[in-house]
Amino acid sequence: MSLDDVLARIDAELPAATDRLLELLRIPSISTDPAYKPDCEKAADWLVADLEALGVDAKKRTTPGHPMVVGHVAGDGPHLLFYGHYDVQPVDPLDLWERGPFDPQIEDTANGQVIRGRGSADDKGQLMTFIEACRAWKAVHGSLPCRLTFFLEGEEESGSPSLVPFMQENADELKSDMALICDTTMFENQTPAIVTMLRGLLGEEITITGPSKDLHSGYYGGIAMNPIRVLSRVIAALHDDDGRITVPGFYDGVPDIPEEMAAQWQALGFDSDRFLADVGLSQPAGEAGRTPLEMVWARPTCEVNGITGGYTGEGFKTVLPSKASAKISFRLVGDQDPHAIRKSFRKMVADMLPPDCEVSFAEHGASRASSVDISDPKFEATLKALSVEWGVDAAYIGGGGSIPIAGHFQNILGTTPLLVGFGRDDDAIHSPNEKYDMESFHKGIRSWARIVDALTRS
Amino acid sequence: MSLDDVLARIDAELPAATDRLLELLRIPSISTDPAYKPDCEKAADWLVADLEALGVDAKKRTTPGHPMVVGHVAGDGPHLLFYGHYDVQPVDPLDLWERGPFDPQIEDTANGQVIRGRGSADDKGQLMTFIEACRAWKAVHGSLPCRLTFFLEGEEESGSPSLVPFMQENADELKSDMALICDTTMFENQTPAIVTMLRGLLGEEITITGPSKDLHSGYYGGIAMNPIRVLSRVIAALHDDDGRITVPGFYDGVPDIPEEMAAQWQALGFDSDRFLADVGLSQPAGEAGRTPLEMVWARPTCEVNGITGGYTGEGFKTVLPSKASAKISFRLVGDQDPHAIRKSFRKMVADMLPPDCEVSFAEHGASRASSVDISDPKFEATLKALSVEWGVDAAYIGGGGSIPIAGHFQNILGTTPLLVGFGRDDDAIHSPNEKYDMESFHKGIRSWARIVDALTRS
Repeated sequence: MSLDDVLARIDAELPAATDRLLELLRIPSISTDPAYKPDCEKAADWLVADLEALGVDAKKRTTPGHPMVVGHVAGDGPHLLFYGHYDVQPVDPLDLWERGPFDPQIEDTANGQVIRGRGSADDKGQLMTFIEACRAWKAVHGSLPCRLTFFLEGEEESGSPSLVPFMQENADELKSDMALICDTTMFENQTPAIVTMLRGLLGEEITITGPSKDLHSGYYGGIAMNPIRVLSRVIAALHDDDGRITVPGFYDGVPDIPEEMAAQWQALGFDSDRFLADVGLSQPAGEAGRTPLEMVWARPTCEVNGITGGYTGEGFKTVLPSKASAKISFRLVGDQDPHAIRKSFRKMVADMLPPDCEVSFAEHGASRASSVDISDPKFEATLKALSVEWGVDAAYIGGGGSIPIAGHFQNILGTTPLLVGFGRDDDAIHSPNEKYDMESFHKGIRSWARIVDALTRS
Repeated sequence: MSLDDVLARIDAELPAATDRLLELLRIPSISTDPAYKPDCEKAADWLVADLEALGVDAKKRTTPGHPMVVGHVAGDGPHLLFYGHYDVQPVDPLDLWERGPFDPQIEDTANGQVIRGRGSADDKGQLMTFIEACRAWKAVHGSLPCRLTFFLEGEEESGSPSLVPFMQENADELKSDMALICDTTMFENQTPAIVTMLRGLLGEEITITGPSKDLHSGYYGGIAMNPIRVLSRVIAALHDDDGRITVPGFYDGVPDIPEEMAAQWQALGFDSDRFLADVGLSQPAGEAGRTPLEMVWARPTCEVNGITGGYTGEGFKTVLPSKASAKISFRLVGDQDPHAIRKSFRKMVADMLPPDCEVSFAEHGASRASSVDISDPKFEATLKALSVEWGVDAAYIGGGGSIPIAGHFQNILGTTPLLVGFGRDDDAIHSPNEKYDMESFHKGIRSWARIVDALTRS
């Protein structure tokens, strides 16, 4: 029995693997909306049952939020942990979806077959690449390749409030030789990659209150403070004319990019024009004097993710609202301290308030940036396995998004994270019509078989 | 038969009149939302039937939008027209209503009985004060007091798009000696008033588009232009630090307040502290150097009535949205030209756009301010009738809100508008839990009987 047998089994099983993924995608496990709590439970139960079918001792573990799914199987060689998340993003604006977000299907497109549906790329499809690789391995070899721990979360899209306490309480159980994390993309849609640098994330929601109730803008317009105006002034003040973020102390701990890394990134030949053109843009809008790849991988950001106030329905209503609110996120790099930035941001907002206005804040997560030491030869072994599978030299890259779990593995468990994913920039994760390429799913499964094979030998 | 008999009849009929109003309030005739079109038709049909019961030749008249209800009855003496509107404002935020907006009821409060429900004060309750006065008059005298035209609109809360064309096409039919308009409030909740100065209204909706679709703020944050940031900068730039509006040419045509009028207003002893304290505020937020009464009656304003963009649901979503939009209204005074201001505003916004952003605009009405010549002795007769009914000297006042119809009567028909209403500042029109005081309804009906009696004699 050889790796080739496992790969052949994966090829033969692809239709059945796809059906299993579609089944999981039909569960609307939106973690941020309490209305979907039963669906999150259902997705966790589904995974427990699926892992049990592989001979894994899997359990749904309660938390104050959505459950964790943790499974163990004994074996020789290294102890590998696999992390993924079974929760998904909300689906609005629903009217922009071409079909039901939780009525997934396989579609033929100009770029090949895709699996369409919420969570297909983020992260259910990616999560299942590893499980399907294990299933094929077991079918061929009768057992799994080494000692394995599965660690599947249900709160990744809502700030992971239970994650750190759970890891701290179960550190001995979760500690392993390497944590395989499948929640990232390839480089420019075609080059398989290991992400070694991830931005941190700080989420804040601010609500500004002016009058004690909604008013008629004819009677009170001009004389009463309008909280939308105040909120707009706050948001407008968060960046200066050079695109730099104005929160005092924000850039403390932001490192310069090492020359060596800058050179490696330069060599990747990132096509920022195409990257922007794909989403209808023509020029980088970030900090003056920074390259596009720096902006998305290595510079901190401040973005408004949502804003609302007053009448937002059809037509017009001359209301002067009592409240206006915004959801604001900061991506952090290097040694930026999310807690210090939160404090400074809140003070800055409070200092900008005119008389008669109040502000309240809600937290939505705070994680530091992380970077991975790649001196362990397992990284080169993984890079090689990926290169063989995809027929392209795999790369070490930075990641624009934030996967706080990577830092937690390092800091809480002392376990090295290995971030490998098969998503693509056009997957529309967090957006309407999310998809995952069938090629990503198929070659993703094959990649994990190769990687696990390489890691158990290295 | 005398006026006293009519007033006695009104007192006796109050419970039945209240039941009729509750019936009309149960029809959710929200004109701005196309989903309620059948309900607007239903409200119009209800009014046609009610007017027919008074012997009025009433018809539902089609327009490109919601129908007008027009009714005529022959008679001696002056030809009076009565205007009101049967459409109502939307009801959101629905969760702030203590009962269904269209499940009206009579409630006992610390300030006496109120009629609670959407449209109770704006404008169904006010509209019915005149109809009920006519009903009592007819019951006592067997006929209505003079030649009357009823002109009831169903688009007042959505910018009255059909109004001007309808008035132009039916000018001969609608021309009258005086247009009685019941859609205003008393002065400081206790002094009956004739409004002689009304602000105009310009409504604009702007939508800024950045990327062609919603993006993940991790991948695109920093490098892609965020339309919420752009919109916030636009809104923040609309006022300077003194609260003055920055749209170029905006103050062209804004008159100084005549000394005589300023003195009369001063004499009214407006309690701005209480006016603001009622809504949880402590100081005027408008233009520096202007008195509170100037701010609400005689100065132009710019208010954001609604803003939306990105994810606005529960929890957090790290989206970088494609679009952000705001509804913005300007209150106009004196000779300010709404069309010139619209043009200047749109140019100002377009000039502020960074590369890769587009803006689209939607119109929501444009009307000039109006002021009424009170030299006709009918004004003094009305003031006297109001003073007798309420036991307080009635006043000529300005109005913060905009009632474009007043200007249209003057400009299109050459008919003098007489604005008398019985609303109160705390009626919460356009807001949750709208109410109309039973005293306003009862004394409002009695006031119209007295006014019509006075006008047919003067």
